[in-house]
Amino acid sequence: MTHPRSGFDPSASSLAGGVAPEVMAELLSVRSSIDNIDATLVYLLAERFKATQRVGHLKAEHDLPAGDPQREAAQIARLRMLAEEAQLDPAFAEKFLNFIISEVIRHHQAISENRRPEATGGPRA
Amino acid sequence: MTHPRSGFDPSASSLAGGVAPEVMAELLSVRSSIDNIDATLVYLLAERFKATQRVGHLKAEHDLPAGDPQREAAQIARLRMLAEEAQLDPAFAEKFLNFIISEVIRHHQAISENRRPEATGGPRA
Repeated sequence: MTHPRSGFDPSASSLAGGVAPEVMAELLSVRSSIDNIDATLVYLLAERFKATQRVGHLKAEHDLPAGDPQREAAQIARLRMLAEEAQLDPAFAEKFLNFIISEVIRHHQAISENRRPEATGGPRA
Repeated sequence: MTHPRSGFDPSASSLAGGVAPEVMAELLSVRSSIDNIDATLVYLLAERFKATQRVGHLKAEHDLPAGDPQREAAQIARLRMLAEEAQLDPAFAEKFLNFIISEVIRHHQAISENRRPEATGGPRA
């Protein structure tokens, strides 16, 4: 069934043809949990970027560098420990945080560049 | 203050020297929210991998391919829509899902390889 609002079809699959109905039913049941988790992840990531956006503005206002190596090292060590508690691969947790941090640093640099007078008003001849 | 259990120092920073105390206090306050969000993300990702692990075993048992292009296309379209609602960059949401999916496919392939008789018992001469 396609959702009327979003056009999302939770049963979309390239497998449909050759799969027994009871296997497909179990697959769709687990996938529906994955879809709920993914929506939560998106809203949580949005909230995280709102927080790092505040950090970015704070850093730009006070001319602080976009990156903070000691903070990042402490975050990575903590996330690896939390990952072990959660039975998530710590190497994956570290890769994940690096993925997020590189996006955050990109945002901070954009905020900082937008604050420079010569950067406002778009490109010049 | 360093946490006794984890050794995590939420105020670790390379900036400390040249920053006004009130700016540092605001920075640490936002960072403490980021740390809470990150712990939630780790536990949520762990739960997501538990679900995809179940999908992986189901696929391996029934000889289904690790990837499912139509499912992935539907997931990406939905996450982009959710990202817009959450005011998160939809391109980032798509990059994020691809990052997760490539890890999941790696897991599924590992599950499927471990089930082949010649793969059990480690490498042979």
